[in-house]
Amino acid sequence: MQFDRNALEALESRYRAALINSVSGYKPANLIGTANAAGATNLAVMSSVVHLGSHPPLLAMVVRPGGDERHTLANLLASGEYSINHINQSIYRQAHQTAARYPADQSEFDATGLSCQWLDGFSAPLVAEAEVKMAMQLRQHMPLEINGTHLVIGEIVTLLLPDAALRSDGSLNLPAADSVALSGLDEYLCGESLARLSYAKPGQPLQELASDE
Amino acid sequence: MQFDRNALEALESRYRAALINSVSGYKPANLIGTANAAGATNLAVMSSVVHLGSHPPLLAMVVRPGGDERHTLANLLASGEYSINHINQSIYRQAHQTAARYPADQSEFDATGLSCQWLDGFSAPLVAEAEVKMAMQLRQHMPLEINGTHLVIGEIVTLLLPDAALRSDGSLNLPAADSVALSGLDEYLCGESLARLSYAKPGQPLQELASDE
Repeated sequence: MQFDRNALEALESRYRAALINSVSGYKPANLIGTANAAGATNLAVMSSVVHLGSHPPLLAMVVRPGGDERHTLANLLASGEYSINHINQSIYRQAHQTAARYPADQSEFDATGLSCQWLDGFSAPLVAEAEVKMAMQLRQHMPLEINGTHLVIGEIVTLLLPDAALRSDGSLNLPAADSVALSGLDEYLCGESLARLSYAKPGQPLQELASDE
Repeated sequence: MQFDRNALEALESRYRAALINSVSGYKPANLIGTANAAGATNLAVMSSVVHLGSHPPLLAMVVRPGGDERHTLANLLASGEYSINHINQSIYRQAHQTAARYPADQSEFDATGLSCQWLDGFSAPLVAEAEVKMAMQLRQHMPLEINGTHLVIGEIVTLLLPDAALRSDGSLNLPAADSVALSGLDEYLCGESLARLSYAKPGQPLQELASDE
């Protein structure tokens, strides 16, 4: 199947949204936790977190100012703090349900039965049921004029993860952490490792690394 | 295991890179194809493609100006065109090998045995062996001062995908397209669908959608 620009433009809007949201490939499935100045909590599923750099440890994410991401953006801009929590197989249905349009005064934690976890000196809630989770401090915020989305860049100030998923070289075993991926708007997937491959060098064959190293 | 900011700062640099590159979760595994003005081709594995919007169809990616992504960035800024190609199970070893530091005059296509696919009127090569692939026109380029990376925003002008992976609602079945995910710096994974979930509404239970719809 081939779609050129005119064909993409002519697609029915929900079909196009399902298609274009799929074509970037596997996406990380995360819950973003925030709180407003009064302490009211908010939780939103997002699939746009991307690695920006490891020193300092920076992650970026794309936030849409409309819909249920509106409160997330307002809260993190006001407080300068948010949490990123990996969605796992035990909570992906509750995580998906956070996308429903609840009234502003109803917390998605209460509505979906997920639990807040608070860290000393940090104003945003983490998700107690998540295994991999991070407290983030806002470092930069850039509205993207091209389509009205916002790029949010934050630094990891606390990182929590299960011992069993941390390999000796520092890499995280995502299936061992039970983390899941998102595809498109509504599909949750688990992962199975094919291989870890050695650092590539010209003219040298790749070695397969032990995946449980 | 818990790492605070000081603990992250104190980590050995390769350990920290392995850890921080893992914590965003599952990443899309893509090959970026470009050519310079003389027609010399370049191919680089990248895991930072992120959905920006579906109308117009925009994808962003984070490019590091050092190392093997240097030529990719120079080529796409000069030509305004690049391709995004899903890595699949048949080519992930060759894809990983493109990260080796080949001399500027050696194409990663030739070095790894992957084949160029050319579209009429489009100057950047696509990967013939990829099943899901896109011709992209550069729309915006933003250097990110916070750590010297670059945000590249492009519009999908041609989209190619296998009929068998396209569902009736427009969503893409990534395992059916054989697309793979990346974790950290070196691990390739395939995905298995857990469920597709219905659009979330307050007070309504989620329905499971047929995954082969």
